[in-house]
Amino acid sequence: MLIINNRKDLQKWRLEQDNKTVGFVPTMGYLHEGHMSLVKSAKKSTELVVVSIFVNPLQFGANEDLNNYPKNLENDITICKSHGVDVIFTPNTNEIYSNGYPPKTKVNVELLGNHLCGAKRNGHFDGVCTVVTKLFNLVKPHKAFFGQKDIQQLRIIETMVKELNMPIDIIPCPTQRTHDGLALSSRNSYLSVAEERSALIVPKVLNHLVSLIKKGETDTNTLITDGISLISKTPNAKADYLEIVDYNTLQPVHTINGKIIIATAVFIGNTRLIDNIIWSD
Amino acid sequence: MLIINNRKDLQKWRLEQDNKTVGFVPTMGYLHEGHMSLVKSAKKSTELVVVSIFVNPLQFGANEDLNNYPKNLENDITICKSHGVDVIFTPNTNEIYSNGYPPKTKVNVELLGNHLCGAKRNGHFDGVCTVVTKLFNLVKPHKAFFGQKDIQQLRIIETMVKELNMPIDIIPCPTQRTHDGLALSSRNSYLSVAEERSALIVPKVLNHLVSLIKKGETDTNTLITDGISLISKTPNAKADYLEIVDYNTLQPVHTINGKIIIATAVFIGNTRLIDNIIWSD
Repeated sequence: MLIINNRKDLQKWRLEQDNKTVGFVPTMGYLHEGHMSLVKSAKKSTELVVVSIFVNPLQFGANEDLNNYPKNLENDITICKSHGVDVIFTPNTNEIYSNGYPPKTKVNVELLGNHLCGAKRNGHFDGVCTVVTKLFNLVKPHKAFFGQKDIQQLRIIETMVKELNMPIDIIPCPTQRTHDGLALSSRNSYLSVAEERSALIVPKVLNHLVSLIKKGETDTNTLITDGISLISKTPNAKADYLEIVDYNTLQPVHTINGKIIIATAVFIGNTRLIDNIIWSD
Repeated sequence: MLIINNRKDLQKWRLEQDNKTVGFVPTMGYLHEGHMSLVKSAKKSTELVVVSIFVNPLQFGANEDLNNYPKNLENDITICKSHGVDVIFTPNTNEIYSNGYPPKTKVNVELLGNHLCGAKRNGHFDGVCTVVTKLFNLVKPHKAFFGQKDIQQLRIIETMVKELNMPIDIIPCPTQRTHDGLALSSRNSYLSVAEERSALIVPKVLNHLVSLIKKGETDTNTLITDGISLISKTPNAKADYLEIVDYNTLQPVHTINGKIIIATAVFIGNTRLIDNIIWSD
């Protein structure tokens, strides 16, 4: 396994592998089984797998956890090696934003980013799309793998790739969960033991809403009010948002109809966790 | 010469030419010797030359000349053929914006677009960069050729390519002029005979400012006031802007120092013409 920290070496390596199919898993590190499920998908369908580890400042807001974002490069390397990753690309900020920070060029997706996390994290998805575009142009993968846990990110990147005609297949991968149902996330490491128990409300509220829909509830206002109330009764928990949006437009729907996403962000203490369920009638 | 009007055929052609170097000249059609100077540069340095003809609605403002923009595809085809162009790509709006219009994804360059034409044409350069990114991803050229007449566009695209790590060389080509000095532009076709005479003020005012700089004038306020006064004395002419900006940042400078751009947009009757001179002391 190669560990590369600059664009030049990455591009040189990529040129040497010109005849091979390349799968790409972009990450912010502190890797867990969620990431490794993306790597496993990549291993199955491409000859070489590149994992990038880059905590992208452009997608963090001023009051967010950029400086505290968990890191453990040594462990990340061990996990990647054991899963047969071919290259870890781990550049620093100057290497990625070599023409100055903030960059003058951004990829802007505000039309898909005005709800869910996008409404709460101003500029977040522009930051994501900008760095993903840069990484795509450096790694030149045939396929790139994204988790459904970050559903708005996935849908935005699928749209970006389609609308900008990027020659890359985006492969969605199912959310990985603990046996209790909590979605795997690097940010789970922030939780105390008590908070970990409280965090189970996140998948629970989503499953609860699905069960109400199955019973015939179609009014999204009723569903959301019910869900928010459930979250507010949980110790340490505060809903940041709970929304039901159309799968394609990511805009709120009033009535359950067609393919929708039920998505939530919940503060458990100071830790903000996200989760979602895709539902289709 | 092939004439292709859809993405699928273009991508198929491109795949068949995988071993050849490809030069790309994106245009809005109504081709003239200015465009052909880009084609000549492309012919010299790449094996195959693609010219795109697409009047991109995303880069036109609500009150601009989108619907009147001059068209003559038959003549464009003749000119391209006679200059040895290999492919004309001439898609319609639905083909380029197949995922809906306006697109949800844009390339945003506001930090370089807040002066000169960018200040006057809100969203113009986002529109340019978005369509150029799409075309780059479809054509996959090794080199792309842009005229220095549209200097802000050139500098923004150079920056975009650098910052987004696009694997393309941007080749700047000098402004082509009539024997009177008027920069060639498709919009010159809007001018009456009298207006054509008035239009000569555009290159004249730029040359006048350069001569003042050569004589030792370094205060850009003085230079701009002098230039605006010259334009205002010309029949049919009204300055839209006259600015002196740093070559790299495209931000106004107070004193002539290093590499700068003197750029102007002037309304001649209803026709808006742009021109510029790059100056370095």
